[in-house]
Amino acid sequence: MLIVMASDASPDEIRHVCRIVRELGFEAHPIPGRTRVAIGITGNQGPIDPSRVAALPGVRELIPVTPPYKLASREMQPDDTVVRVGSLEIGGPQVIVIAGPCSVETQAQTLETAHAVRAAGADLLRGGAFKPRTSPYSFQGLGEEGLEILRDARERTGLPVVTEAVDSESFDRVEQAADVVQIGARNMQNYSLLRRAGRSAKPVLLKRSVSGTLMELLMAAEYILAAGNRNVILCERGIRAFSDYSRYTLDISIVPELKRITHLPVLVDPSHAAGRRELVAPLARAAVAAGADGIMVEVHPAPREALSDAAQALTPPEFATLMDELRAIVRALRPGIAVRA
Amino acid sequence: MLIVMASDASPDEIRHVCRIVRELGFEAHPIPGRTRVAIGITGNQGPIDPSRVAALPGVRELIPVTPPYKLASREMQPDDTVVRVGSLEIGGPQVIVIAGPCSVETQAQTLETAHAVRAAGADLLRGGAFKPRTSPYSFQGLGEEGLEILRDARERTGLPVVTEAVDSESFDRVEQAADVVQIGARNMQNYSLLRRAGRSAKPVLLKRSVSGTLMELLMAAEYILAAGNRNVILCERGIRAFSDYSRYTLDISIVPELKRITHLPVLVDPSHAAGRRELVAPLARAAVAAGADGIMVEVHPAPREALSDAAQALTPPEFATLMDELRAIVRALRPGIAVRA
Amino acid sequence: MLIVMASDASPDEIRHVCRIVRELGFEAHPIPGRTRVAIGITGNQGPIDPSRVAALPGVRELIPVTPPYKLASREMQPDDTVVRVGSLEIGGPQVIVIAGPCSVETQAQTLETAHAVRAAGADLLRGGAFKPRTSPYSFQGLGEEGLEILRDARERTGLPVVTEAVDSESFDRVEQAADVVQIGARNMQNYSLLRRAGRSAKPVLLKRSVSGTLMELLMAAEYILAAGNRNVILCERGIRAFSDYSRYTLDISIVPELKRITHLPVLVDPSHAAGRRELVAPLARAAVAAGADGIMVEVHPAPREALSDAAQALTPPEFATLMDELRAIVRALRPGIAVRA
Amino acid sequence: MLIVMASDASPDEIRHVCRIVRELGFEAHPIPGRTRVAIGITGNQGPIDPSRVAALPGVRELIPVTPPYKLASREMQPDDTVVRVGSLEIGGPQVIVIAGPCSVETQAQTLETAHAVRAAGADLLRGGAFKPRTSPYSFQGLGEEGLEILRDARERTGLPVVTEAVDSESFDRVEQAADVVQIGARNMQNYSLLRRAGRSAKPVLLKRSVSGTLMELLMAAEYILAAGNRNVILCERGIRAFSDYSRYTLDISIVPELKRITHLPVLVDPSHAAGRRELVAPLARAAVAAGADGIMVEVHPAPREALSDAAQALTPPEFATLMDELRAIVRALRPGIAVRA
Repeated sequence: MLIVMASDASPDEIRHVCRIVRELGFEAHPIPGRTRVAIGITGNQGPIDPSRVAALPGVRELIPVTPPYKLASREMQPDDTVVRVGSLEIGGPQVIVIAGPCSVETQAQTLETAHAVRAAGADLLRGGAFKPRTSPYSFQGLGEEGLEILRDARERTGLPVVTEAVDSESFDRVEQAADVVQIGARNMQNYSLLRRAGRSAKPVLLKRSVSGTLMELLMAAEYILAAGNRNVILCERGIRAFSDYSRYTLDISIVPELKRITHLPVLVDPSHAAGRRELVAPLARAAVAAGADGIMVEVHPAPREALSDAAQALTPPEFATLMDELRAIVRALRPGIAVRA
Repeated sequence: MLIVMASDASPDEIRHVCRIVRELGFEAHPIPGRTRVAIGITGNQGPIDPSRVAALPGVRELIPVTPPYKLASREMQPDDTVVRVGSLEIGGPQVIVIAGPCSVETQAQTLETAHAVRAAGADLLRGGAFKPRTSPYSFQGLGEEGLEILRDARERTGLPVVTEAVDSESFDRVEQAADVVQIGARNMQNYSLLRRAGRSAKPVLLKRSVSGTLMELLMAAEYILAAGNRNVILCERGIRAFSDYSRYTLDISIVPELKRITHLPVLVDPSHAAGRRELVAPLARAAVAAGADGIMVEVHPAPREALSDAAQALTPPEFATLMDELRAIVRALRPGIAVRA
Repeated sequence: MLIVMASDASPDEIRHVCRIVRELGFEAHPIPGRTRVAIGITGNQGPIDPSRVAALPGVRELIPVTPPYKLASREMQPDDTVVRVGSLEIGGPQVIVIAGPCSVETQAQTLETAHAVRAAGADLLRGGAFKPRTSPYSFQGLGEEGLEILRDARERTGLPVVTEAVDSESFDRVEQAADVVQIGARNMQNYSLLRRAGRSAKPVLLKRSVSGTLMELLMAAEYILAAGNRNVILCERGIRAFSDYSRYTLDISIVPELKRITHLPVLVDPSHAAGRRELVAPLARAAVAAGADGIMVEVHPAPREALSDAAQALTPPEFATLMDELRAIVRALRPGIAVRA
Repeated sequence: MLIVMASDASPDEIRHVCRIVRELGFEAHPIPGRTRVAIGITGNQGPIDPSRVAALPGVRELIPVTPPYKLASREMQPDDTVVRVGSLEIGGPQVIVIAGPCSVETQAQTLETAHAVRAAGADLLRGGAFKPRTSPYSFQGLGEEGLEILRDARERTGLPVVTEAVDSESFDRVEQAADVVQIGARNMQNYSLLRRAGRSAKPVLLKRSVSGTLMELLMAAEYILAAGNRNVILCERGIRAFSDYSRYTLDISIVPELKRITHLPVLVDPSHAAGRRELVAPLARAAVAAGADGIMVEVHPAPREALSDAAQALTPPEFATLMDELRAIVRALRPGIAVRA
């Protein structure tokens, strides 16, 4: 932490700030500058609460130096976290693909999709049973019945299942049914839900909120990690910017930056980012080329009949073509890695 | 709803879209254009799900005409909703002021603030007992003990209390203790919590999320209204843009637009928007001048010692000066309205 | 400037950075921290170019401490700059109002508007002769003929004239005709034009670009100031965010922040920010309440016939009502200041 | 164009709007809805100016149906534009790479870079002689001397040269020296410069501004195309969003969308988008995987000594590694295309 003093701060004010910093258990290092003094803070065993000094007389601003996340940081754990789901490794050398419908609608639709995505090479099945929807009048998911359909699909296809929990109540049920529990973008800062996820034995796929900074995403992961669950998978799915042609703006740059500063696996969901089928395959290819550990993509056997997000689902043949392209990129960029088929 | 067809859509595709629209129970009106055909949809008794037509062959885009919110709309209810809290009216002719600390820290701090803001003319006391914090290592609020302190402050000052519920568990307890239950910005799309709020007999203060569009804010209100609670108060608290000098960007324009299209009361929280004390009073004045029904502002007897958001709290004397300014603006713009003192 | 070293930076790397800093003529102050070392830089007579150190081995990031603008800074000039246009003072105790049509279309339209806004109390007349338009197929302004019409309107009404220059060629002509030369938002970082404005004897009204940070706005002003023209007026006109109801998002908070850190006058243009007539008056009131030195607003005698931006122009009666409201706010907040009528 | 009437618009208002539309030379098609009437406009030979109807009584909003760009549209020209620079084809089957320093600093630095990027397989040399800089106190480029250095580098390496023009004066000189003239992001809406570029016989590389929408980018291209120059190359270089880790946010999604709706070539500049060396290679790979026609990347023989943007330049060995990766992706995704080496 660096405290920048106002250019007209008095020597008394500077001494006062230093004294308070020391009272809080830290060391204060005044650095005289041309127009103002800055005060470096060191020796902090834990994070210092900025609000204890921000309002002292003469203080102009505070500049954090050490990142506030700890367990999520690669400085803390240099080696990649590899999340194991059965024999599957997420965050290891292979690029993994999660595919399936936005919502579980019927057993037939789910099974048909599951078989199709498995045939094309997907590693996990996705599908929403509890759906957070902007409108109270939209289809809200099949709930418990949806979980049953997913269980059945897993049994018949062997694909592990990823599905979303939207509150503590649904978490209990999803945790029973799913192999990976998803926390959706709208709940990235639902701290009760994050703490609940932290007490789970199941891996958690945490989606970045549409306005979440990199730091907020890692702090959300930190809630889960700090509560004891080390199997956290991050997922970029688009931010809210000013696009006049896509639903959200895929922040592709966060992929290499996350890989650099955290040991957690990083996935990309091009379907929700784009909101439009035409953009999904190019964005999925870009994600893998940028270094993502995998992608999560929506597939529906008959998109025009889907009950939610119809405009962004790929058909099974489109998905199979995408899988071929992804395999080609993986072969090009990660030679020697066996690719699933 | 207007369906815009691609410029190369075939007559068959156009006929197919019209047939599907009619099968869904609506009327379809093709409008031939110079380069393409658009299809107007009418007769809709409820909202049409866009995903049913967006993926039909030849469809280029969908343009909604009727807003998806119903109960929140001024077209549905032309007269202002006035939320009553004891003898206080929120959304009526008076401008109301909610003031108090970010967090309830101690009984002394809360009582001192409550007395100070009441003396300056505040109408309600705010203070967080359950605090959503970005970091799991930050102070998370006193919880039940904080609610006790707020109850006590209300008893001693007569000020009704606004405090936040962060999940269904805390909602039950907050609902007992508070006069108005706040749903914070991070939970604007926590639909479980919104539905719980909709079943409450207490008024709900719903804060806009930092990335919430006007439409999403009204749809969040719609969740509460549709579940039966008509006493919803909206609150703008800043959006996430690219500011290099303030924590968030206060979207002042949403105040007159909300007043125009919804009957619900509209407040502004300048403290969280700015994140810096120097900007709070100018933004509070701007909010009242723009037509807000009131403001919500953080006050702390000794900001430099606050456990959260210290940089943005006003001191009691600063708050008293602001109250004088707000009264002057109200007298100037709403002549004839008695102003509390 | 503070240089933050990587947590694994070697002692050699730290020494190397310090040596380079000293070779550049500055002093280097290493500050050892718990996980990393930071290096404070002092003694800088002018700004240090960050690119000289950012790429040194072991450097993690650079944090500027002293702002890069000099002449625009209130630290450099504590007293307000007051720009004089005839007997008018912009940036002094009075709130000034610039009003008129978006584009000069005809002599009759311009004169009618000029008389109307003068009658309602406006201080200056605005009107575009050279119009930057998004589409090459839109009306691009009357050019020289428009300047003639503005000259005539000034002669007949006595109102000084503000009009835009879009390139160096038009600057020469606008400079002859106008009392204040406007640099539009799209040209905020057109440095050739800024330098040309800096060589002018006429005051310059510099609009913030829709993506300009506060720092970039002040650096753009610095270009004009550094070239010798000290009569610079800043104008906020809305930023590009994600609004679903207004054309841009008025960043009202920048008004008090600019007043705090620069001595230059600060105006607000609510018309372009909102893009919709219904929002203009509330935003104008908010601007004055937040401390703006004045507003710039579009008025058209028959908005529905305007050749550009018709949706945002006030009618003369609407403008007269707004002027009454603004006078009431000024009287409330700046008692003792005579208000023009 | 669709005109949406207010729900309380009177039959007279609706008739009035229809009459005005017809007077403007278009046809009006009223579409009665459940709560309001919409009016479709057809028969438009050119674009209708929205401002002529937006302000009519009873009008709620206008919805454009036909895109306002014409010459840039793939509906107008279905086949890809291929820009020829000597024997090089930009927008054809090959992926092209433009590389070089941010600024031309010395002959030695430029030549060394040019030889290095040619050896690694670059197709064109980039380098700024006229530099738009945020601060008036930063290095502004070598100007004419820089152009001489570029001419020399072209002669010695055979690489065609891309360099920026910042105003009409520099355009004349750059046009003489360069093979491709760049219009930078800050000048995307500098319409005088765009018109000048439209009169040039040289290809123009047009960079998207940091707040430019897709529509605005295409309208800027339209200015050049409409003035007669059909050799326009578009370039995405990052938008301004809320990133806390990169300089701008690369909007990768615009690549496939531009390829879909315009026939113009589309490049990506990962260096300016990221602002940090570590992110450049992953973003370049993502751009090619998403379908870009090429990339533009900064390379410097000694980044730590660069006079501008040092933090984002690759070293020649880093660039060579990136070229290998790009070739591998091109081979994977565009089998059969010969790749330069």
